[in-house]
Amino acid sequence: MSELRKDPVVDRWVIIAAARSRRPQALAGPVPSEPAEPCPFCAGRETMTPPEILAYRDPSTAADTPGWRVRVVPNKYPALHPSADFRERADFYRSEVGVGVHEVVIEAPHHCTSAAQLSRHNLEEVLAAYRQRMLELQKDPRWQSILVYKNQGEAAGATLEHVHSQLLAMPVVAREIAAEARALEEHHSAGGGCLYCAVIDKEETSGERIVGIDEVFLAFCPFAARFPFETWIVPKRHSPSFQTMPDRELRQLADSLHQVLQNLDRVARTPLNYVIHSAPLQGSGSQHYHWHLEILPRTSKIAGFELASGYFINTVAPETAARLLRAAS
Amino acid sequence: MSELRKDPVVDRWVIIAAARSRRPQALAGPVPSEPAEPCPFCAGRETMTPPEILAYRDPSTAADTPGWRVRVVPNKYPALHPSADFRERADFYRSEVGVGVHEVVIEAPHHCTSAAQLSRHNLEEVLAAYRQRMLELQKDPRWQSILVYKNQGEAAGATLEHVHSQLLAMPVVAREIAAEARALEEHHSAGGGCLYCAVIDKEETSGERIVGIDEVFLAFCPFAARFPFETWIVPKRHSPSFQTMPDRELRQLADSLHQVLQNLDRVARTPLNYVIHSAPLQGSGSQHYHWHLEILPRTSKIAGFELASGYFINTVAPETAARLLRAAS
Repeated sequence: MSELRKDPVVDRWVIIAAARSRRPQALAGPVPSEPAEPCPFCAGRETMTPPEILAYRDPSTAADTPGWRVRVVPNKYPALHPSADFRERADFYRSEVGVGVHEVVIEAPHHCTSAAQLSRHNLEEVLAAYRQRMLELQKDPRWQSILVYKNQGEAAGATLEHVHSQLLAMPVVAREIAAEARALEEHHSAGGGCLYCAVIDKEETSGERIVGIDEVFLAFCPFAARFPFETWIVPKRHSPSFQTMPDRELRQLADSLHQVLQNLDRVARTPLNYVIHSAPLQGSGSQHYHWHLEILPRTSKIAGFELASGYFINTVAPETAARLLRAAS
Repeated sequence: MSELRKDPVVDRWVIIAAARSRRPQALAGPVPSEPAEPCPFCAGRETMTPPEILAYRDPSTAADTPGWRVRVVPNKYPALHPSADFRERADFYRSEVGVGVHEVVIEAPHHCTSAAQLSRHNLEEVLAAYRQRMLELQKDPRWQSILVYKNQGEAAGATLEHVHSQLLAMPVVAREIAAEARALEEHHSAGGGCLYCAVIDKEETSGERIVGIDEVFLAFCPFAARFPFETWIVPKRHSPSFQTMPDRELRQLADSLHQVLQNLDRVARTPLNYVIHSAPLQGSGSQHYHWHLEILPRTSKIAGFELASGYFINTVAPETAARLLRAAS
């Protein structure tokens, strides 16, 4: 069982995955990647993962057999476990049982290592799986936020190369989401409307950081991008939560994400993370949140400067990145 | 000239090092490390760096020649430049000329790749160089904070392997320092005294996370450690700023740091960062800050979870880490 611990000074929780600390041989270096062969995520090896929670599959096929296109399974090495109640202790230190849900979305049945290799329709089903699992998980009042994220490439933290992403339902609100929600709420309360809606207006007007645009979504390199070629996809209409997106918008999002991933792959084929920022599940201010998807190419190392400051050094101006990504279309 | 940009929503500044973006060949991947040979930081190659700002050297030797023990030079590829005024624009987006000072502390004249290989006296001179440069840099009212950090090993962001660290004087307060300063100030205003002093009391009482202790400093693995074997060295007496430390305490700090680095090297020889958290240079709440040094071994990758949430997953409980580090003494 893992444990959630809050830093006594700043708003930062850490998941102490204590079970792993009992393996002394794992202490001296990184936990090695599992061997690529046999890949437990490939079709035909369904028994190498825990039983599936959800799969989009040929209706004539049985669970945990081939025939699926996208498959969701519990994480075999979960950071958080769903089996205990979460209660915050008001001790000197705050520490909690590491309760939560940690799932893996296997994005394709064939061995493939990059989301850029997935078809538009495949991506649409991946996004639909996120939505379906988020709608299901949010019924549990213990979860304050659900993170959806992808680690692609070893430098981006992937331990298996087969294309996949992860969902983590947590009993606390992620620090970054909380900071955004607080800032958006303050701006709204001061009569300023939605700050992300204002960002969208600003970006549409200037155009210099736009990567792609359609009726529903704006894809752009943000003004204060942390990473070279960092790209966000944001719904133009104010919308707090990813999981309330209707089918029509989900299809548009698949179009936009497919295009951005293709262009990124042409210009800078690097390890990457993407993360969905969606409104906290509980709390009154959530309707002022504006969900978005952040794609974070990982060409640069997170070093002492970033850890000491919480700031970033980016060697490619977002205007340059956007120009090169547009040209790659 | 680089540019400082603030995220429009959260309190996060990014340094856009635009000059580097003009090299298209650098776009597709990480900027390659400079070749290890010839090493520009070794004694005898002083002309490969900009002229020295400070050196502790044999008094019979001339600047920028051998004879030094610790040498401080301007960073040849600075993230920030000292040549312009910093004024915050209250535009829709906030962006500033990237003004600041970026220096490199070369910690030994001989080629050596780990601070664990430095003698106690060598480390004392490194710490003295930090102090001397911080005292000098803080005379300039443009700087709000001075970061001191080490990147050791490629996975920790080092581009040159010769043992070195960096100072960065910035016109903004680092987000992590600001968050700490705010929390410490709030706790003090509520009549709670210094929260880090309370942490020290708590750790001294429990003892289970202590790595080392003397009259002046406590070395311990913090309760909510982000990384396996993360170790902090904190002055037991309340003290806001690193650079006001008297000589006697500097010697004790060198002792403590030397011991911790030795033990870490025996238990987990990994890439690491260390960072000094010292009070913001301006502002009324700074006297309630409590400076400390954080050593962050980098066995684990910073992946989508950490970037999405601002939280961390640590596979080694700090109590286990402290026990193993104590046993290595």
